[in-house]
Amino acid sequence: MPVRVAGFDGDDTLWHSETRFHVTQGEFRDLLKRHVPDADVDTRLAEMEMKNLSIYGYGVKSFTLSMIETAIELTQARIPTADIEVILGWGKRMLMEPTRLLDGVEATLRELSGRYDLLVITKGDLFDQESKLARSGLGDLFLGVEILSEKNVETYGGVFHRRAIKPEDFVMVGNSLRSDIVPVVALGAHAFHIPYEVTWHHENVPEEELPKQGWRRLATIRELPAAIESL
Amino acid sequence: MPVRVAGFDGDDTLWHSETRFHVTQGEFRDLLKRHVPDADVDTRLAEMEMKNLSIYGYGVKSFTLSMIETAIELTQARIPTADIEVILGWGKRMLMEPTRLLDGVEATLRELSGRYDLLVITKGDLFDQESKLARSGLGDLFLGVEILSEKNVETYGGVFHRRAIKPEDFVMVGNSLRSDIVPVVALGAHAFHIPYEVTWHHENVPEEELPKQGWRRLATIRELPAAIESL
Repeated sequence: MPVRVAGFDGDDTLWHSETRFHVTQGEFRDLLKRHVPDADVDTRLAEMEMKNLSIYGYGVKSFTLSMIETAIELTQARIPTADIEVILGWGKRMLMEPTRLLDGVEATLRELSGRYDLLVITKGDLFDQESKLARSGLGDLFLGVEILSEKNVETYGGVFHRRAIKPEDFVMVGNSLRSDIVPVVALGAHAFHIPYEVTWHHENVPEEELPKQGWRRLATIRELPAAIESL
Repeated sequence: MPVRVAGFDGDDTLWHSETRFHVTQGEFRDLLKRHVPDADVDTRLAEMEMKNLSIYGYGVKSFTLSMIETAIELTQARIPTADIEVILGWGKRMLMEPTRLLDGVEATLRELSGRYDLLVITKGDLFDQESKLARSGLGDLFLGVEILSEKNVETYGGVFHRRAIKPEDFVMVGNSLRSDIVPVVALGAHAFHIPYEVTWHHENVPEEELPKQGWRRLATIRELPAAIESL
């Protein structure tokens, strides 16, 4: 039974995202080191993000708010307000950056769009994600966009239900084992993992918890058309 | 032809929202008055929100970031960092507040849910809105949730298309003329306007730009079952 619908993660699958977080986090580290030279800025920021995840959710605005809170906490409120303004500016810069597509994405999507229904299935901030897709110039290749607050068995199941998709007709393509592969395979659908150069710590899955079958790893999105064909 | 699907705005239609913004904005005004007694805090904050709307979109996180930026700008960075921390706390409090349903909402929805397909159609922050619906305890009464980055003719048209809804079968219920009534009536569907005690300036529409027919105003959601029946 051939696949009918292909879902694509957005961040770090279709366009660069984590690199913009890494660049900003490097600047943040340098800024804080001037006030608290011995602080483990990365660890404290990661802890703050995890602590705030259930309140803020994902995305650049959440990241910006967590940076500000970390800066205040780590410096015991000694960081000057002007530096808070700098952090606000980083957040805006991240939100306004042009969408940089990954290598091979545009050609591959154009090739696939005639053969399968294509969906973007992503999480994060609704406004930011829609804006990125619009600026990518690829919006017209997709039948639809699903922006989920979390990617898990329930929310993918909701997409299948809303769009009347049978799991066996569906393949998911993404860079996160935790968000794009594990829940999709658990529902009986197919998945291809295309690793990105950097992975957010939150998205990792221990090797022993990975499903034994139903998915495989590709080196680049260019391998996708043949890989789907072979299912 | 009877209506088949009823869409409901969330904020200030099903649950209180604008009041939490008003309370926080009052506290923000008091905080800033201590540093800049003559400043027109409300106007400056409203201008900042409008300036940032195309970058941040709607919602509490956007509001929090705009408060911080306004505070820094109005005090020329003289506001102490500890006060920024207070503003961060207000944002979190808003995001964690229990969902307070408006009077009559629960009984009316239970009555309607057997007769029509009910949808929540709201804008704002995806994570915050899903969290509010979940905490409202009403999630099960709804066939689905659509969270839009803007509510206009295009995005409502998208909902109709995705869900195979004919405009004449649809009625929208909400407190915003701009977001819930005007675009829906323009698409040929029905709409009921239920004003809330406070309206965000951005949501107002001049009287002369309102459609002449296709909608009417109700005093409370309790009038809705009979009003839909009469369409």
